Amino acid sequence: MTTFDDARTAFVPPTPGGSLMPTLGGEYYYDDAIFRREQEKIFETSWMAAVRSADLATPGAFKKVQIGRESVLIVRGRDNQLRAFLNICRHRGATLCTEESGQLKRTIQCPYHAWTYRFDGKLMAAPNLGSLTDAAGQGIDRTEYGLVPVALREWLGYAWVCLAAEPPSFSDTVISSVTLRLGDAEAVEHYDIEHLTLGRRVVYDVKANWKLIVENFMECYHCATIHPELTEVLPEFADGLAAQYFVGHGASFGENVQGFTIDGSEGLSAIPGVTEDQDRRYYAITVRPSVFLNLVPDHVIFHRMFPLAPDRTLVECDWLYLPDVVESGRDLNRSVELFHRVNQQDFDACERTQPAMSSRAYRTGGVLVPSEHHIGEFHEWLIASIGE
Amino acid sequence: MTTFDDARTAFVPPTPGGSLMPTLGGEYYYDDAIFRREQEKIFETSWMAAVRSADLATPGAFKKVQIGRESVLIVRGRDNQLRAFLNICRHRGATLCTEESGQLKRTIQCPYHAWTYRFDGKLMAAPNLGSLTDAAGQGIDRTEYGLVPVALREWLGYAWVCLAAEPPSFSDTVISSVTLRLGDAEAVEHYDIEHLTLGRRVVYDVKANWKLIVENFMECYHCATIHPELTEVLPEFADGLAAQYFVGHGASFGENVQGFTIDGSEGLSAIPGVTEDQDRRYYAITVRPSVFLNLVPDHVIFHRMFPLAPDRTLVECDWLYLPDVVESGRDLNRSVELFHRVNQQDFDACERTQPAMSSRAYRTGGVLVPSEHHIGEFHEWLIASIGE
Amino acid sequence: MTTFDDARTAFVPPTPGGSLMPTLGGEYYYDDAIFRREQEKIFETSWMAAVRSADLATPGAFKKVQIGRESVLIVRGRDNQLRAFLNICRHRGATLCTEESGQLKRTIQCPYHAWTYRFDGKLMAAPNLGSLTDAAGQGIDRTEYGLVPVALREWLGYAWVCLAAEPPSFSDTVISSVTLRLGDAEAVEHYDIEHLTLGRRVVYDVKANWKLIVENFMECYHCATIHPELTEVLPEFADGLAAQYFVGHGASFGENVQGFTIDGSEGLSAIPGVTEDQDRRYYAITVRPSVFLNLVPDHVIFHRMFPLAPDRTLVECDWLYLPDVVESGRDLNRSVELFHRVNQQDFDACERTQPAMSSRAYRTGGVLVPSEHHIGEFHEWLIASIGE
Repeated sequence: MTTFDDARTAFVPPTPGGSLMPTLGGEYYYDDAIFRREQEKIFETSWMAAVRSADLATPGAFKKVQIGRESVLIVRGRDNQLRAFLNICRHRGATLCTEESGQLKRTIQCPYHAWTYRFDGKLMAAPNLGSLTDAAGQGIDRTEYGLVPVALREWLGYAWVCLAAEPPSFSDTVISSVTLRLGDAEAVEHYDIEHLTLGRRVVYDVKANWKLIVENFMECYHCATIHPELTEVLPEFADGLAAQYFVGHGASFGENVQGFTIDGSEGLSAIPGVTEDQDRRYYAITVRPSVFLNLVPDHVIFHRMFPLAPDRTLVECDWLYLPDVVESGRDLNRSVELFHRVNQQDFDACERTQPAMSSRAYRTGGVLVPSEHHIGEFHEWLIASIGE
Repeated sequence: MTTFDDARTAFVPPTPGGSLMPTLGGEYYYDDAIFRREQEKIFETSWMAAVRSADLATPGAFKKVQIGRESVLIVRGRDNQLRAFLNICRHRGATLCTEESGQLKRTIQCPYHAWTYRFDGKLMAAPNLGSLTDAAGQGIDRTEYGLVPVALREWLGYAWVCLAAEPPSFSDTVISSVTLRLGDAEAVEHYDIEHLTLGRRVVYDVKANWKLIVENFMECYHCATIHPELTEVLPEFADGLAAQYFVGHGASFGENVQGFTIDGSEGLSAIPGVTEDQDRRYYAITVRPSVFLNLVPDHVIFHRMFPLAPDRTLVECDWLYLPDVVESGRDLNRSVELFHRVNQQDFDACERTQPAMSSRAYRTGGVLVPSEHHIGEFHEWLIASIGE
Repeated sequence: MTTFDDARTAFVPPTPGGSLMPTLGGEYYYDDAIFRREQEKIFETSWMAAVRSADLATPGAFKKVQIGRESVLIVRGRDNQLRAFLNICRHRGATLCTEESGQLKRTIQCPYHAWTYRFDGKLMAAPNLGSLTDAAGQGIDRTEYGLVPVALREWLGYAWVCLAAEPPSFSDTVISSVTLRLGDAEAVEHYDIEHLTLGRRVVYDVKANWKLIVENFMECYHCATIHPELTEVLPEFADGLAAQYFVGHGASFGENVQGFTIDGSEGLSAIPGVTEDQDRRYYAITVRPSVFLNLVPDHVIFHRMFPLAPDRTLVECDWLYLPDVVESGRDLNRSVELFHRVNQQDFDACERTQPAMSSRAYRTGGVLVPSEHHIGEFHEWLIASIGE
């Protein structure tokens, strides 16, 4: 059993411990108008992790993702750069790519009227285009009628996109979330996430509001009740304090635990850069609004959420290992199974919470116990983001 | 063929016979806002028959039902009392019971964070609860954070619940409906419904507004057309006058009919308390808003409606017999089949009426013929209940 | 390769060629309120081709169709006339016919309370009706309580119906659309469509707004991209100019093409009245809001659209041939296959356009290239019809 000696300061505890704090009212979890505001003010203005960069290995490789209300196309260019565009032709609005992912040959060609775009979005050709002018009689500007670009930034091996015309600072939002949680800007670099390899991916279709999933991830008051395997590996979780409650704190593996696996047996090869401090510890990080990052010595678990409706969220979860581990074909099952089971347990809990949000008993919300108080700060951020 | 000599007074006939009266306009049967008002002003403020008490035989036995917009949990306590609660944890809003029914061991424990309630609703335990205080710094009142109670009253062997903070008088609403219809407060007691046993239960998922089902049950103008088996057993129904049209009137069995069965063959053992007057007669009673009661000498048919949407109503129908009849394993099929078929015929008619409610031809409604005029009083009650 | 020598005047080209024109904004293709206005102001006030008259061959034959928000019943009377009525009983609103089509015996009888109507809509009988009076004490007028009539007009072998109380002139709307397009009131008569026989019918359930289907049918800018078989038969379509762009113009068959078939092989027996001018040509006509007419020498392809939702349209397509051709059992497959494939290609394009209508990139719409400019006139008509 570890102690909390290494915990430095409480993570924005908004009220004195020992009391009950209110949650958001139930309508925040089912109301269509509130979800619409979240789409506009959060998902369509924040940096959202869209795809793992390595999934698009070669020029012309593409993937489409749903960000807020938009279908976004991410494609690797001939110059090897990843770019993102709205997935819609500028001519008459046909969806350019209807497949989830694939490989384009030399251009992005609309299958309706054959308007043809370069991988950098510029309009390259269209039947009869040569003689065209705009309403003012000027020749058509092929950039003006190019694909609508979406901001894209790569970090930790993922392409993050932002639909805002003027995206917020990536450092001040995404990176600083990680730094603030780990207490050290270098700490995440030790895991060299960018150069890890995808070992397993599971997509969960969760019938619950995305905020229930965030809140669930932020607290460990539920761990003793629903995560028997996880608390076996991380005994301090049985006390109900989340790893995220203290800056820089990582939950220690139990004494007899050899690795972060379903049965505590030995894990895979440790990531070389992981420090002594980080060894035998689990760190969980929430990067608002849609990413969870889980760090253990031998792998990284990376969750991306895609909120599709007030009561439906797609969660794509990647298990990342050292390239050698994946290429050697080593058995990942015991390693993957631990957090896959945690995911299932958590999402089940969220799904059983969703339907009760509209009860009169939850009209003004429920309560947060002291070990959940940091969730209050998430609620304040939400209200500030979308307005009351 | 019987005569109506025993009919005493017409049941609130609102206009002189022989004319056509208007019905409600079509929007009352499909409009979401009107259904919302019915939920608020009728289903969530009236006594609604929820479960048969005997279904929850032992302490910890529970069943959940949908009343208006709420999931209501009904559970038998250690003191053998039935109680009803909103089916939601006071902590973070998880649904307590997701199964339709079952048997709890010693407590009601939320499966998310293990808040634990007694069968009487009091908060018994929660992880780390001991040291908790409320916002004012006071120790937590375990009753204040107990389950939200719902009023419950048992009558005729059923648990009736009411979501209103101040429920209406049970006598002045439920009991007086039955008395007013039968013309005698004692009449229903002769059937000793409380001590009958469930012989068969059928749940019908009807794609129609609940009021179409009520109106259908209230009139017999359709009997000759859609209920050949029923009019064979109750020949006066072929004339189109509902049993409910005259106070105290029960429809007589046909001369050659031996029992209330699909083929008029002999029924089961008669209920001892049934009087000479009640023998060989069928009585139908509507207890607004959601119960139909059908009385014949050897059994009772009890309908509970659960309106789920403007165009969807769940109807749970119980056939109740003397305990001896059920325990002896006697064949109930011919007995059950008669009203099961009537139910199917009626619900088919309601389902074929539902889609036409939005036609311009029904914007101001249809017409009631004289034998349907008492339905007009149901419409007046509805308007009075929800406001125009 | 044909020239356009025979094209007389451009079909309402709203702006000078060579420029890009705006389309409707995306909301016109998904917004519920706009679709509601289209139902009220267009589908429920225009002449809509409902059924092929010959489908209802004998007295009592009926078919029901969805026109705007109404279920409309079309039935052939004892006098051999087709008539249309709202498919709803005047008594309590039951749907009269729930089957798509069928054969009535002697009356239209409501299956709920047996109100019985003649095929001309008059109320013929109802249980206990004899003694009825209306609210003023007058005897019931059996015409007043007859079925609600819907205007019906036969032309080209189809029954066209109009829900408006005062339908617009059939000549000034339907017939003049055809005349205006063909440039000659007699031209369509040569095909003697009324006396052709149904060879094949295919119903397409298209997940797209009806206007996308109209726009697609009006232009041929997409033909080179998605219709390889059609452009093989009609080479000028590869240039992207629609047959409908020039008044009176029909697209010529390619030099080596023998017939309007999937592989250009010989077609069926030519319709005798087709003129030298019309031979080896394809004419396409849009009759707003819901009919497409396609004329080739040996058959006619007749599309009827039934818009069911903003994003769903049922399209019923008939292939019509000389009676001899159908009765002789000749193989129609190569003939039917050409436009069946065109339909599939077009509806696929519409379905891939529908989801992108709500993208921010289409908020103010896309652009029309010069060969699509006549679609702008369709948009003006739409705006004029429903108001901005």
